[in-house]
Amino acid sequence: MEKVLVFGHKNPDTDTICSSIVMSQMENKMNQNAECVRLGEINKETQYALDYFKVEKPRLIEKIEEGQHVILVDHNEFAQSVDGIENAKIDKIIDHHRIELKTTDPLFYFAEPVGCTSTILYELCVMNNIDVDKKMAGLMLSAIISDTLLFKSPTCTPKDVKVAEELAKIADVDVQNYGLDMLKAGTDLDDFSAEELINLDAKNLESNGSKYVIAQVNTVNIEDVLKRQADLEQAINNEISKKGLDLFVLAITDILNSNSEIISLGNKAKVVESAFGKTLENNRTFLEGVVSRKKQLLPMIEKNI
Amino acid sequence: MEKVLVFGHKNPDTDTICSSIVMSQMENKMNQNAECVRLGEINKETQYALDYFKVEKPRLIEKIEEGQHVILVDHNEFAQSVDGIENAKIDKIIDHHRIELKTTDPLFYFAEPVGCTSTILYELCVMNNIDVDKKMAGLMLSAIISDTLLFKSPTCTPKDVKVAEELAKIADVDVQNYGLDMLKAGTDLDDFSAEELINLDAKNLESNGSKYVIAQVNTVNIEDVLKRQADLEQAINNEISKKGLDLFVLAITDILNSNSEIISLGNKAKVVESAFGKTLENNRTFLEGVVSRKKQLLPMIEKNI
Repeated sequence: MEKVLVFGHKNPDTDTICSSIVMSQMENKMNQNAECVRLGEINKETQYALDYFKVEKPRLIEKIEEGQHVILVDHNEFAQSVDGIENAKIDKIIDHHRIELKTTDPLFYFAEPVGCTSTILYELCVMNNIDVDKKMAGLMLSAIISDTLLFKSPTCTPKDVKVAEELAKIADVDVQNYGLDMLKAGTDLDDFSAEELINLDAKNLESNGSKYVIAQVNTVNIEDVLKRQADLEQAINNEISKKGLDLFVLAITDILNSNSEIISLGNKAKVVESAFGKTLENNRTFLEGVVSRKKQLLPMIEKNI
Repeated sequence: MEKVLVFGHKNPDTDTICSSIVMSQMENKMNQNAECVRLGEINKETQYALDYFKVEKPRLIEKIEEGQHVILVDHNEFAQSVDGIENAKIDKIIDHHRIELKTTDPLFYFAEPVGCTSTILYELCVMNNIDVDKKMAGLMLSAIISDTLLFKSPTCTPKDVKVAEELAKIADVDVQNYGLDMLKAGTDLDDFSAEELINLDAKNLESNGSKYVIAQVNTVNIEDVLKRQADLEQAINNEISKKGLDLFVLAITDILNSNSEIISLGNKAKVVESAFGKTLENNRTFLEGVVSRKKQLLPMIEKNI
């Protein structure tokens, strides 16, 4: 039987890694020959989840051969996928993002407007009568906690909460305790250079002829990160020159109090001012209650750029 | 509660009509406020199914207002959808075609590479514990019979057959008898002018800079249709001039013996020769075993145009 590779997006986060592991297990339980792979390094938050549930990280790949059968999770845009995706055979896509896709053949595509890919995967398990063991449940739960910032993000839906509750029972963990420990593990930023930090979770975007990046880091102490503001600004300005960007927005998100401090640089830095009705001081502004790039930062910046 | 409109593609066939009726009923059983509508006239095959199961045809609409919530079944390309779709709010899509779509927001999207939209709808009923009554079952069964030409089309999958068998039990019909009667009802072409006939089920396409149409009519007697060849050719040539087409292919498909006679006109008429290794005589050629536009005609013509 031909092997199918299962993977999430580049610059993988906890949902991408955990959902691709679970999806490959589901496929194998349905008598397929699936292997989970990843397109980048594992971050500390994800590593915490893998260690906690004693699961090995997937194999790293950089490109795929023509005609390779693949299953995409947590993304559908080719720009966020593996090199060579244009000539792959996409069997399935499980995702929770907007759709930007052209395929030559019909395929299995299941997307829902929920907070996390793993919420949809759990429904697929139920639909296909697949037994969810403790490890699978733990991985899916970790993905939901990560994508919804422990249910505090405006991207979180009632379905995410309900599924997480069921998964927590199977995984045998206390959601609040485990969730906070996992999120905190991802906020240990000391090992990263300024350049690494601004690229940890950076999304390249283009709207109305402007090229821009919205990057995000999670923390439990915004002040701690701001101590490195000079270094961060230098790294951001290097990115701006290198990529010819009009704008680079770095959101430093306080996961405990659900706020973000924004650093905005580039010739369109002031877009942030019109987008949120705030004034930049020292290239920064504080956005109360803003934690979601997808629901809060991106739409407002896209509208104003 | 805001009303959502449920509809299939323009130039509606039995799958589009039956699936949109069933989908709106499913939504209402899940406490939504859904109304099924249609984008064109009901064909004779569909009318047979609606009459048999005593179901009213949906209301006809021509365009929708900005911001209208909609659910699309059996299509996802805006070119095949209602006027104004660009500014609608698409809540859900249930489909079995290739994907060619850009959305601004995440949405519910469920597609599978099966022969018929209703096959997927039945899975959704099961998934959501929705009771399938006799009428719903009859409509879904009719859609599957139509799209798979009573399981003879190469687009038919084992899942379509399995679902149809379950639906036939609920609908309390003999699949072969009912199916053949329904398909035959759709082959009564006498009322149609040549112009109507070539537009009954015509797909506008564009590949490699060429504009072309592949149209199809079902019959139980190819010779009967060919008696009107001169009129049909005139109507086709009018379409070619009017739309600036390079090619117009009309497939006259024998649903009993699973073959098609092709009429090919336009400056690229000979594409049919290279596509199928046949010679056009009197603008015609016979393609044994060819019944599916999606799986057999379109890919070969697209490759050779």
